[in-house]
Amino acid sequence: MDKIEHIGIAVKNLEESNILFEKLLGRPYYKMEEVLSEGVRTSFFKSGPNKVELLEATNADSPIAKFLEKKGEGIHHIAFAVEDIESEIARLQNEGFTVLNEVPKKGADNKLVAFLHPKGTNGVLVELCQEIKEM
Amino acid sequence: MDKIEHIGIAVKNLEESNILFEKLLGRPYYKMEEVLSEGVRTSFFKSGPNKVELLEATNADSPIAKFLEKKGEGIHHIAFAVEDIESEIARLQNEGFTVLNEVPKKGADNKLVAFLHPKGTNGVLVELCQEIKEM
Repeated sequence: MDKIEHIGIAVKNLEESNILFEKLLGRPYYKMEEVLSEGVRTSFFKSGPNKVELLEATNADSPIAKFLEKKGEGIHHIAFAVEDIESEIARLQNEGFTVLNEVPKKGADNKLVAFLHPKGTNGVLVELCQEIKEM
Repeated sequence: MDKIEHIGIAVKNLEESNILFEKLLGRPYYKMEEVLSEGVRTSFFKSGPNKVELLEATNADSPIAKFLEKKGEGIHHIAFAVEDIESEIARLQNEGFTVLNEVPKKGADNKLVAFLHPKGTNGVLVELCQEIKEM
């Protein structure tokens, strides 16, 4: 596990939150992206070597829709950068963590991602995040 | 606002969570510190240029005790590094954010800190964090 790649924040209205976070962070988002498989629209802000990702649900089955319903707006997950996601998944399983998707999936921002079950991490939804390298 | 200085995670039992996060992050905490004014015991882990702070309540009036009671264990706040906390407080107030303590206070890890009200930041408790320089 290396740096905090990003923190993910669940929001109800991406356009309104983009304006809010531009004021907060002092700079605009640098990209927006829809991840169809996750049912989310996202925007990304740079914060030094880290990023802030805002996530809005695009349908009622989206994990973000369920999170908003249960907990309201707020921090949804924290993502750590990893060099080699498959070896990191194996290491964490060996340490007793529950990996929600053993096969890494394509996430936003050109990343391979995997999530750990928050029941095993003090209630924190942890994402592992590996840059997809061009071949 | 610069990098994510740290994320703060509320935990019930600091010793147990220290063991858990050592396994998760692949390295032990590098310091523990009690902040009497906040009613917390904390531990810090490095994560590249960022940190993970675990917080345990030391009394029932601690903000962490109240958070645990209301929401359970999980991410409590996100702290951004700032160069000049007073000018950043003035900038954010000017943008309409509510600063919980207008006069920065001494936090853990040799920092001057101020918090923004989460009602104005999509439910996210945001901490501003300035290194205290030696005179």
